[in-house]
Amino acid sequence: MKLQFLGTGAGIPAKSRNVTAIALKLLEEKGSIWLFDCGEATQHQILHTSIKPRRIDKVFITHLHGDHIYGLPGFLSSRSFQGGETTLTVYGPKGISEYIRISLAVSQTYLKYELQVVEIEEGVIFEDNDFIVEARTLEHGVISFGYRVIEKDRPGKLDTNKLLEYGISPGPIYKKIKDGEDLKLDNGTVISSQTFLGPNIKGRVITILGDTRTCDAAGVLAKEAKVLVHEATFSEKEASIAKEYYHSTTVQAAKTAKMANVDCLLLTHISARYDQSLTMQLLKEARAIFPNTYIAEDFSEFEI
Amino acid sequence: MKLQFLGTGAGIPAKSRNVTAIALKLLEEKGSIWLFDCGEATQHQILHTSIKPRRIDKVFITHLHGDHIYGLPGFLSSRSFQGGETTLTVYGPKGISEYIRISLAVSQTYLKYELQVVEIEEGVIFEDNDFIVEARTLEHGVISFGYRVIEKDRPGKLDTNKLLEYGISPGPIYKKIKDGEDLKLDNGTVISSQTFLGPNIKGRVITILGDTRTCDAAGVLAKEAKVLVHEATFSEKEASIAKEYYHSTTVQAAKTAKMANVDCLLLTHISARYDQSLTMQLLKEARAIFPNTYIAEDFSEFEI
Repeated sequence: MKLQFLGTGAGIPAKSRNVTAIALKLLEEKGSIWLFDCGEATQHQILHTSIKPRRIDKVFITHLHGDHIYGLPGFLSSRSFQGGETTLTVYGPKGISEYIRISLAVSQTYLKYELQVVEIEEGVIFEDNDFIVEARTLEHGVISFGYRVIEKDRPGKLDTNKLLEYGISPGPIYKKIKDGEDLKLDNGTVISSQTFLGPNIKGRVITILGDTRTCDAAGVLAKEAKVLVHEATFSEKEASIAKEYYHSTTVQAAKTAKMANVDCLLLTHISARYDQSLTMQLLKEARAIFPNTYIAEDFSEFEI
Repeated sequence: MKLQFLGTGAGIPAKSRNVTAIALKLLEEKGSIWLFDCGEATQHQILHTSIKPRRIDKVFITHLHGDHIYGLPGFLSSRSFQGGETTLTVYGPKGISEYIRISLAVSQTYLKYELQVVEIEEGVIFEDNDFIVEARTLEHGVISFGYRVIEKDRPGKLDTNKLLEYGISPGPIYKKIKDGEDLKLDNGTVISSQTFLGPNIKGRVITILGDTRTCDAAGVLAKEAKVLVHEATFSEKEASIAKEYYHSTTVQAAKTAKMANVDCLLLTHISARYDQSLTMQLLKEARAIFPNTYIAEDFSEFEI
């Protein structure tokens, strides 16, 4: 599982930071990629990565501000143009559906794949065998969601030595046991699959927040997460501006990370007012509270 | 007057060519810049030029395909964010108004300047003291306009020697004569301003076409133009594909330029299938018919 940042700026694009988009690469886990937000020119950023647009099968929109959605119509169109044929689902606040519908209709764009648009509310918005995604509203003046991506616990390692002790040779049966099917011996004895499996492998939690003032919901979403992606539009010195514009500071993000006991904090949505040296200062502020913090740059990739 | 290409590709962005946008810089003539089309990431391209978004006061949309309009909401928003306060007018086909309205409304974007959106039909769509802009429909499957920008003739050079002969010393009167006001001598004699002015300076014509199959309207719009900007999505070898997809070839564009007796032909909207060496081949094809042809690259600038 990898997180790659495609845009890490705030409000408007700058030469060094594009507007927001983050790719969660689940290539080993699901063979697919999930996108979080899709600011203008996200498809342009993708051109400079190894990401194949057709591999992206879910887009989670945190909120409807232009710097988080204006790249969506272009991305959806180009995914079709570039041979994407599998269903793509967009999750986002009420309004996202009309925006996509009108943008595609006015431009007479006909997608060659099925597009599902789900206007979400708080709660579990997606679940399959491997993952659960929960959404909660943050504080941003407009509806802004944070997403908690929960990987389900996976069965532990198969103890092949023990299987051989029971006279079970490698074959399709190994996969069945791994998947939780109990073993029936020839004499009728049933042995629990757990006998041959190590302890469950704990699923990881990745929390990706939309723009927000520091708020309780952020902490709830981030609880014990492996990675928390938190906006840090401003330095702690600009705390009053941050509050006024419904954004967070470095220190506020770090405090949430600490309180939620996450493993790693990734800061993004950095205002263009901070050049490289000031950005180092931002990092210092956050690390004073929560040492395992990094500031994301465009194209930064983090192994989770 | 200068033309700067901000995007010269076709359909989807590529690393080397962004989707369509062209800036007509009327800084000496009007102190402003007009944009023709606004594909996604036009505002990003502008970051790499000397163009100030607040100086752009008109945007002419040729047609509603995504690669010509998806940059509009972001450009309009950022122009406001970056301090643009003067009125901006967008001209374009029916539908452009709804697209802009919904994009701004869904994202809760409030512009700090007056935005006028004019859904046009064929004919004169704009006229002031300096310029006339005419639109005609081309052939592109959807409504696609070509624009003929006509600079009005300007008064000739003021003959200051002759004015001095008449005993008229430099002062505000010089400007009045230049502006066409006749001269009244103290003895009551009236002398026509023309006496002191050289021959009228012929206004220039710039023709910028939207995507189109080769068609008669293109020739009418381009008649005697100083510059014709014509799409050349395909090589002459792909003439049948060009026709099928309502696009033009190099040779078709060159023939129109020749027939319309333009001074200079600028080719744009080049398919990503043509790499640098194939692009040289495209140029060769066009120059065989119309020698004064150039292929526009992103950021190319042409003095008119």
